[in-house]
Amino acid sequence: MDEQRILLAHGNGGRFMRELVAEIFARHLANPLLDTEADAVPLPGVSGQLMLTTDGFTVQPLEFPGGNLGSLAVHGVVNDLAVAGAAPRYLTLSAIIEEGLEVAQLDRLIASFAQAAQACGAAVAAGDTKVVPRGQGGGLYLNVAGIGERQASAALGLKGIRSGDAVLVSGPVGDHGVAVLLAREQFGLSGELQSDSASVLPLAQAIWHLPGLKFMRDPTRGGLATVAHEIAQATGHSINLQQAAVPVRGEVQAVCEMLGYDPYYLACEGRIVAIVEAATAEQILTAWRALPDGQDAALIGRIEAGGGRVLLETELGGRRVLPELEDDPLPRIC
Amino acid sequence: MDEQRILLAHGNGGRFMRELVAEIFARHLANPLLDTEADAVPLPGVSGQLMLTTDGFTVQPLEFPGGNLGSLAVHGVVNDLAVAGAAPRYLTLSAIIEEGLEVAQLDRLIASFAQAAQACGAAVAAGDTKVVPRGQGGGLYLNVAGIGERQASAALGLKGIRSGDAVLVSGPVGDHGVAVLLAREQFGLSGELQSDSASVLPLAQAIWHLPGLKFMRDPTRGGLATVAHEIAQATGHSINLQQAAVPVRGEVQAVCEMLGYDPYYLACEGRIVAIVEAATAEQILTAWRALPDGQDAALIGRIEAGGGRVLLETELGGRRVLPELEDDPLPRIC
Repeated sequence: MDEQRILLAHGNGGRFMRELVAEIFARHLANPLLDTEADAVPLPGVSGQLMLTTDGFTVQPLEFPGGNLGSLAVHGVVNDLAVAGAAPRYLTLSAIIEEGLEVAQLDRLIASFAQAAQACGAAVAAGDTKVVPRGQGGGLYLNVAGIGERQASAALGLKGIRSGDAVLVSGPVGDHGVAVLLAREQFGLSGELQSDSASVLPLAQAIWHLPGLKFMRDPTRGGLATVAHEIAQATGHSINLQQAAVPVRGEVQAVCEMLGYDPYYLACEGRIVAIVEAATAEQILTAWRALPDGQDAALIGRIEAGGGRVLLETELGGRRVLPELEDDPLPRIC
Repeated sequence: MDEQRILLAHGNGGRFMRELVAEIFARHLANPLLDTEADAVPLPGVSGQLMLTTDGFTVQPLEFPGGNLGSLAVHGVVNDLAVAGAAPRYLTLSAIIEEGLEVAQLDRLIASFAQAAQACGAAVAAGDTKVVPRGQGGGLYLNVAGIGERQASAALGLKGIRSGDAVLVSGPVGDHGVAVLLAREQFGLSGELQSDSASVLPLAQAIWHLPGLKFMRDPTRGGLATVAHEIAQATGHSINLQQAAVPVRGEVQAVCEMLGYDPYYLACEGRIVAIVEAATAEQILTAWRALPDGQDAALIGRIEAGGGRVLLETELGGRRVLPELEDDPLPRIC
């Protein structure tokens, strides 16, 4: 396309929109299912149980160290399927584009979306684009629905969690939150830290068959502490986390201390928090540590009967309550 | 909720978000499938062919005579499935909410979404909410994916269209476009006109079984003329529309003349354009006219061999070319 920036006319159904869809979306996302002339496409049957999820992505800036909005959107949805025990099969993509977005940047983001989807084994089967006037969008928002096929042998969920279960995390927490924060020029900081944005499918697949696995979640918005609160509220039990055991990179810790954030509330986009029978914990950690993204996997706490609270046992032996998140520390983080 | 307007903290994964999801989204959209604690939900199997679509909705204003963003989002996706020959089964909803949106308005819009989904027989199986800072959204954007089950006996598509086929429309064109336009205070106009936003599922169902049915599309963005261009480009044939036969309400015509719009390019959100074998046209019109939303159904033109153009035969007997849409006459129309 000759145009360097997105115009309102790229959203009106006419020639510019047709060219935009053909030259960016269809070109990158092409696969035998995608048919930009069809209102709806037929899906090939799958033999297993279908699983469905959806997520919206609004991260700012659109590109950050270790990832971008395009790959993040795929990872976010694939990870929701993976922690529910499903392998991704089909994705939909609804893009809301702000007038004035650079066409070259849109092209990079959709190329990255396409690469991430292919790497996860998911075909983009349907899409839509809208253009909103300047000042009514944030550059680009992506909305993705994911259809997966259940692979886990047991149905995973909060209901099976019991006192004594172990809390595991597949890697350091807060990398995504701090990487995005550093990428925002407003903070005047810089660093080498990369977002952890990645598919957790290999990590999930490695432990799907283990009978002691009860529950997995990817700790995105609100981070580890917020997943812990969901578990505490749903089960009525308390989560006792051990500060010394929770992996946090030095750079994440340093930025948090400088700016007053708590790493336990910062988003991860490529980690799993798992609740497992205590007897299975070592087996799962071993499986995770054999994978490139699981080398820092750790047992970080236990489920304790009653209380419904999230507790942090500090390195000095004290205990403090991690409250439920109220104010938003970092809007547009995912 | 005590809060009168959406805060950034309603999007952060913490307490405010949990309350927002529970008190608005889960309350209105509740059904046995929806599980706000799950990352992905299992779908009950369907016996027929699964069909998939997605669409984003950005209409401005969020509420307009005859509809609102909530019902429009359901109708848009249901209609994409219906014209592809499928009955809707499951929907996903990804909402991007702008900081400052009135909670009461959000509640009305999601209630309307829920009512429309239920009326169409579709269950909302998965959802997500994000909040973007003031000035980075348009109040509310809704993104919906729809999973349907194919019911039409023949596979519908552009490939079967032949010279001599008839072009039908299920009702007057341009009502949605003009209703939304009138609802924008900037035009200083007012009127009684209502949007045609509605499910076309009854209209589609009434003709799914007819062997002469070749292709259906709902003429949304870019209107009737844009659907005609899609057909012309895909088939290489020309579409010859007869001005006197295309139903256009007097008020739509009057507003178009006043503001310089062409009703053939204005969005409809509850109409079907169908291409059918000429011999089946009367049967389809009879079936449509028996339905409340099909009383003004009309045969509006013919497919002519070659040329790949869209022609309008005027009431005076002349012919003019309807060019493909370039500039956007009405951004944020759907």
